[in-house]
Formats: sequence, C-alpha cells, structure tokens
Amino acid sequence: MEFLNRHVSVRNFKNVPVEDKLLESILYSGTRASNTGNMQAYSMVVTCREPQRQKLAPLHFNQPVAIHAPVLITFVADFNRFSKWCQFNKAQPGYANFISFFTASIDALLVAQNVCIAAENNGLGICYLGTTTYNAQEIIEVLGLPRLTFPVTTVAMGYPDDLPELTDRLPLKGIVHYEKYQDYSEARIRELYAFKENLEQMQQYVKENNKETLAQVFTEVRYKLEDNEFFSSKMLDTLKMQGFMK
Amino acid sequence: MEFLNRHVSVRNFKNVPVEDKLLESILYSGTRASNTGNMQAYSMVVTCREPQRQKLAPLHFNQPVAIHAPVLITFVADFNRFSKWCQFNKAQPGYANFISFFTASIDALLVAQNVCIAAENNGLGICYLGTTTYNAQEIIEVLGLPRLTFPVTTVAMGYPDDLPELTDRLPLKGIVHYEKYQDYSEARIRELYAFKENLEQMQQYVKENNKETLAQVFTEVRYKLEDNEFFSSKMLDTLKMQGFMK
Repeated sequence: MEFLNRHVSVRNFKNVPVEDKLLESILYSGTRASNTGNMQAYSMVVTCREPQRQKLAPLHFNQPVAIHAPVLITFVADFNRFSKWCQFNKAQPGYANFISFFTASIDALLVAQNVCIAAENNGLGICYLGTTTYNAQEIIEVLGLPRLTFPVTTVAMGYPDDLPELTDRLPLKGIVHYEKYQDYSEARIRELYAFKENLEQMQQYVKENNKETLAQVFTEVRYKLEDNEFFSSKMLDTLKMQGFMK
Repeated sequence: MEFLNRHVSVRNFKNVPVEDKLLESILYSGTRASNTGNMQAYSMVVTCREPQRQKLAPLHFNQPVAIHAPVLITFVADFNRFSKWCQFNKAQPGYANFISFFTASIDALLVAQNVCIAAENNGLGICYLGTTTYNAQEIIEVLGLPRLTFPVTTVAMGYPDDLPELTDRLPLKGIVHYEKYQDYSEARIRELYAFKENLEQMQQYVKENNKETLAQVFTEVRYKLEDNEFFSSKMLDTLKMQGFMK
C-alpha cells in the first residue's frame, strides 16, 4: 500500500502538458470506482485551455496551483444526464432532491479519488481545491453546468516539479472507533494533538499569525466562522438554484 | 492502473475474519488521503461484533452483505473532534454549519475510497452500502455519534467468496466534458445508453419487473421519487439534529 501511503499534495508543476491518451486512461480508471446503482451520477469537466482557465483561477482564489497546473478537473455531481435518459424512456425521474444531490456527490468523490490515485501511479502529482464548493455558483456559470448538477471538488494535476514531505496525521487510534464512537475527553484531545502542536512548522504558523495557540490559526485565520456561515448559505442557495432542494 | 480497473463490488464473503494488523494498516492508508487543511474532519467506526452488527443490519435494510461481511466500516464526517480541540485551546470553533458538513463529507469519502483500494490490494473485497444516508438518524443512535458528526457511507469488507464480473460503464466520452459541459440531446443519450439497455441482464430486469423500459425499473422500482423525497427530508432533519444546518 506504499503507493497510497506516500501521497502528498503537489502544488508546483513542470511546464509539461499531460498527454491526452494518459489523461483518458486516468479518467477511465476514475469511472471504475463504485457508484450508486450503476447510475454513474457524475461528470468530469477537464479544463486545460484559455479562456476557461483564466475564468476558473479567481474562483479558486488565484491559488498558484489553480493558475499553473496544466490540467484542472472539476468533479460534478450529475443527475442531469440520468434524468434525461429517464425522460427519453417514458420514465419520470425523481432526482430533484437533496438525497440525490448527496448520492451523486458520493459517486463524484469516489471517482475523484480513483483519478488521483491513477494519476499518481503514472508519475503525476495532484492537489484538491476545496474552493470548489465555496464558489460553486460561479463555477456553474463558467462551466455551463445545467440544473441537477453541482461541482463538488476540483483536482489540479501535472508532472511534479518538487515532491513536498509527507504531512502529519493524527495517531490512527484517535480516528478509528471500535463498535461505538468514543467521545473525546480533554486529556485525550491533548494526547492526540500533541505531536502536531509541537511540529516546528506549526509553532511557526502560530508565531507568524500572532496567535496564542495553533487552534486559533484555524478558527481566526484559515477556517473562520463568518466565512463558513457565508459559504454555507451560498451553497444552500446554489443547491436550490440547481434544483436539488425540493 | 489494472488494480483500479478490475474493481468489482463483492457481496459474498468467506467466513474468515480480517486480521487486526491488516485492518489497521488498511485504515492507516485511508488516513493518507488528501483532506481539507489537514483538519482530518472524519472518523471511522469499525463494527465486527454483536450486538452492534445485529443493530446495524436492519438499518442497511438487511442486505445479505450487511449481515454477513466480517467487517463493516462506517465513515463519519466529523467536526466534533476538531471543534473540541479548538475549545480546549482558547479558540472558538466555527464548524456548526452546512459547508463544514460538506467539507467533512469530502474528507470522509476520500478516506473511504483509499480504504477500499488498500483492502482490494490485500486480497479483500468491498461493497459500499448507500443505505447509510437513508438511515443516518438511526445509525447515529446505534454508534453513539455526537453532535457535529454524520455517517456518510459504510463499507462492507471481507475475503471474497466469489468475484463477480465487471459491471458496464457508459462510454468515457459520455462522462467527460472538455472546457465546458456539453448538455445531452436525445440522440446523444440514446447512443450513450444503447450498450447498457441491450445487455441481456438489463433486458431481464425489465421483464422481471414488468416494465416497458430499463429507466422505469430505476424510477418505479429502485430509486423512486417518493422514497427520495422521504429520505431527503429525513437527512435534512438529521443534519439539523447534528448541528450542521445553522
């Protein structure tokens, strides 16, 4: 399982395109992932060219990886295609609702992860762009996504210019529960997060951001309540707009 | 990428347990997946024993795979642990909202797919149980999942008793869009779905279910409007209950 265990997010790419044939075989491996009822409720939108790249970059907050990666793939929860198939075959589709959105999102995300693993197995590097759901409404417009579709994540892909070091993870026993969820006491939380908090890089984040604790860097700088509330309300509005909130 | 391309869902397992060490190394590979801001907003609940197994099976509609697989792993979107860490470190967590639920779901699903691939690479078979979101409320009760957690999918795992054949997929060109989404005309839909509709097994489904078209088997038997609307409303209520709908 070495190929899974050595995964790192790559943010610097060589100025080399990904060959069409290779990209196709990677996307094909994506579609071999499990999906719900074999309805394949997803689509992939590949963006390599102008002017689309220039329109997408600001929606990913102009992260350098979004600007410079040779390939961006937007993974879309898609009940539009399946619903059209139903309509053309004397069947009344029943997928304009929240559970169908979530089912299609599961499908799309399993495909995304297969695509990433296939890419890495071919010497490529990847980075997920979590900004996709923040600006789904604008991405829908740029990519021309119809009703009953929703972009759930984006993967930037290319040949790595450098491979960063493995990032830290919490101890496995802090993530896995047997039979029942064991809620976390303060002592247990302190034990689980001690390694992370003591990393030199993390202590530097705290200092650079002028905070007292690492947690404050997350809640006051990186993933703030007011942003989360703003993007929550925006995402729910966009789900309504796309027909998924009935 | 042969290991991704030969994936099939396994529903019949040998009566052989999965070794603890192997299971742990598979779960570890899960945690190496990309995740948002390295917050690891997920947990995994492993269920192998009674009485938990007996309580979970009906929530997965007593599918034989849910009853007989030696291991069930419930993948949980989890902002509880991270929020507690914030609270214990003078930081006000801002994750009781919809975007945080969805972010945590993405994290949990990428972990799930890594776990499945790691399992298959060790001779195990897996099957996703889409029933998890239908009965999230009851699963939360059985597994003791606290506020700011939500079960997003379940994987049944064990040594395969038989390997079914590869299932069909739509042609890749029907799933992948370049630069912009190309919406589907009736002619295009007919072309893309012709292979599936003509499969002997699909034609048998149509006959067995006394329907005129394959699409009607989906809309009138398998994934019905009234069920989807019922489970949508139930899932949204459960998200509220878990603190994710502010």
